[in-house]
Order: sequence, then C-alpha cells, then structure tokens
Amino acid sequence: MHPQGLLFRQFFEKESSTYTYLLADKKTKEAVIIDPVLETVERDSRLIQQLQLKLLYAVNTHVHADHVTGSGRLKDVFPGCKSVLSDASGGKADHYVDDGEELRFGNFALEVRKTPGHTNGCITLVLSNAMAFTGDALLIRGCGRTDFQQGSADTLYYSVQNKIFTLPDDCLLYPGHDYTGQTVTTVEEEKKLNSRLTKPLPEFVELMNNLNLPYPKQIDRALPANLICGIQDTSNK
Amino acid sequence: MHPQGLLFRQFFEKESSTYTYLLADKKTKEAVIIDPVLETVERDSRLIQQLQLKLLYAVNTHVHADHVTGSGRLKDVFPGCKSVLSDASGGKADHYVDDGEELRFGNFALEVRKTPGHTNGCITLVLSNAMAFTGDALLIRGCGRTDFQQGSADTLYYSVQNKIFTLPDDCLLYPGHDYTGQTVTTVEEEKKLNSRLTKPLPEFVELMNNLNLPYPKQIDRALPANLICGIQDTSNK
Repeated sequence: MHPQGLLFRQFFEKESSTYTYLLADKKTKEAVIIDPVLETVERDSRLIQQLQLKLLYAVNTHVHADHVTGSGRLKDVFPGCKSVLSDASGGKADHYVDDGEELRFGNFALEVRKTPGHTNGCITLVLSNAMAFTGDALLIRGCGRTDFQQGSADTLYYSVQNKIFTLPDDCLLYPGHDYTGQTVTTVEEEKKLNSRLTKPLPEFVELMNNLNLPYPKQIDRALPANLICGIQDTSNK
Repeated sequence: MHPQGLLFRQFFEKESSTYTYLLADKKTKEAVIIDPVLETVERDSRLIQQLQLKLLYAVNTHVHADHVTGSGRLKDVFPGCKSVLSDASGGKADHYVDDGEELRFGNFALEVRKTPGHTNGCITLVLSNAMAFTGDALLIRGCGRTDFQQGSADTLYYSVQNKIFTLPDDCLLYPGHDYTGQTVTTVEEEKKLNSRLTKPLPEFVELMNNLNLPYPKQIDRALPANLICGIQDTSNK
C-alpha cells in the first residue's frame, strides 16, 4: 500500500514503453523523479511546477539503452536538482549511490539496493518496504535482457532472488517498462508467477542466453547520451 | 490514498488509450472490473485467474464510442460475472444502476454517481470517498467531448461540478483515458488546474461546442457492439 502522506505518480512514455515515477512528500513538497525520459520532460516538469514541488533528485535506475534520460533537461528546468546513478554505472552523475544508501525527500527515504545483471549499474529503489522501483531488473512476469552492457543472467538471478524477492510479499513492484499495459505487480505475484525467475538458475541462464532479441532501436543514440545525463546536460559537472 | 485491503490494478490499452481498472477485496477475492476493452480481455482474464479472484461485475462507465467493451467476452470466461451499465445508457446489461446505488465486492462498495454530459448514461464510480473512476466525464486536465451520443456541455459541467468536484480534495481521480501517459489526478488538482472545467459555464459551453474534433475512428464498430456488451456476448439476456 502507498504510505500515507506520499504523493505518487506513474507516467508512461509510449515510444519506449518506459515508466517514469514521481514521488513527493505532500507536506514538505520535496520530490524525487525516477527514470525520466527526454521526450516527456515537458509533461513531467509542468506537473512538478503545477504542484509546486521541489525536485531534489532525478534518479536513473541504470544507464538506459532504449531511451534518452530526461535528467539533464530536468536539471536545466529545476536548478538544484541532482542527477543520481549507481557508483557502478560508469555514467556521469551529480550524486552516486551505493548499496544501502538512502535518498531522502521530506519524511520519506528511498533505500538503494544494487541489483546488477541487466547492467552492472542497476539499482532498485525501495520506499518504506511498501513500494519498490525495480528498473529493468524485474519486469512484470519478466526481466530485462542480459546480452549487452555487461549483462549477466547469473548476476541478475542473484539480484532478484536476494534483493527484491526478500521484500515483503505485499510490497508493490513498479517496473521500468511494461509492453502489455500493466502498471504494477507484487513480490508475492512475481515469486509465484514470473515466467523467468521462478525457474531454477541453470534453466534461467539457458533461457536468457538464447532470447535472440533484436538490437535496441535507440541504443546508438541513447547510450552515449545517458552516460552524460541525457543530451541536454549543459553543466560542467 | 488506496484503502487498506484493496487490490488495485490500472491497465492501459494502447490503441484507444483506454484505462481499465481491476478492484478486489484481498480477503474475499471478490472483484469488479471497470471499462474492460475487447482487445485486452485475455491479459485481464489471465490476471484475474492467476490471482484467483471472483469477478462479480464488469462495469462500463458508459456506452463507449472509441473501443469495443470486453464485458461480453469476460462473461464468457467468468460465468456469474454480471455486466453493468447506467439505467440511462440505452445499452443492454445484466444489471442497471441508478444514482446512489452501490456495487458491493467483499468489504468494499463502489458508489454510483450519475455524471451525464459526455453521454446520457455516464456514471462515476466512487470507492470510500478515496478513489473515483470518472470514465469520460472528467479526464486529467480535460473532459470527454459532448458533440454526439446525446452529449451536452451544460449537463457535463453540472455533473462534474456537483458530482465529482464535491468529493474530498485528496480523492484520487482515475480517468477513462489519457493520451499523454498520465495515470491519475486528484479533485484538488482538477478544481484548480483543469483547463476546461475551471472556466465559467458559458465559456466552457462555447469551448466544447467548437472543438471541431474528428469523427471517432472506431465508432461505427464500437457503438452497436457496446449496446450489447461487446461483440462476444452470446447470452440470451
């Protein structure tokens, strides 16, 4: 269940089927955005302004290969907003986070759990053990691919089993993408029903290593940009 | 805030940008679906089955012109599930509802509020004064068109001001559609920020009567089907 006093919005970007999340403390108005997309920064900024929120952090769960992050442009719109990445991401950010660190906003805190496997620098962000933002480590009934960006099926399996499936059963899981119009799942559901991660490790690895997925459409544009907070980051950091 | 003990899912159908909502009592497993879409019935049915829910009602907020309802097909999959429409809708349903009636599922109840204007038979469904499903009466920063299906801008204005904006400020409003990737809003936000419904009545009517919108793509297929619970309703009701 969503914690009391939390303002929460889930946004969808159609082209890459990406979810962006806005979280704020209703009282103090301090806010965090997770996985913003360049193309929808205007929509997200407008709402942040309309609700008079104070955007502290623009966090990316990892260096995305399928869309350009909106972090850089958001920093232009909201001076003082810090871009955040895992210290293992290899990307540029104002603030790097390690396992167990917290990102505080008002009376809330997002706990950082490193969940590598899709990429080396993937993190899952956990709010009050009630909501977790899993990026591409865990998708609804699926998971992110592990065939590039230092991907490793073994590592991903370990991450999900030990860092996500250890959360309470009723913890809501908000994925980085969904391609079927679903918006949320729970730990209990994925432990029972995830078509990949309910398999034993060897079968999971075999499956992940033989997905034969196409080359991501936007990767050549997205990766270089996302290593520097998106194409609009004009700061000197 | 979502009431405790409620299982809640928001689904998106890309072609018509329609939101479908699944609500259930976590304990009793009794469930209601709001505005299911024919093309996504399989996705929705699978989840209902996976979660072992007992689907009591498939409710349409109105007779849609932009997509075919999934009610009929859901009735095939879940015998005992009743299709629901407003008694003012002119459509066929197993159960008709009037203003002030309740649809009970487990320990929860959806209160029916008639909110005509987009069509004569539009209803808004309110859960515990905390969440409301507004169909096309109110959209995020907008509202449904009023230029066909007995639409009336005056009537819609009255409905929103008196039946939706009288809900508590922090009541979450879940629309029937969104075309920008937003998922939810609140009464407070729309009272302040809705670009149409914050106008005085005469200006609102003038605006709505001059939108010059294109003819809905799916209307010729959708309307006749939706008057009989969607094309897969093979019952004799």
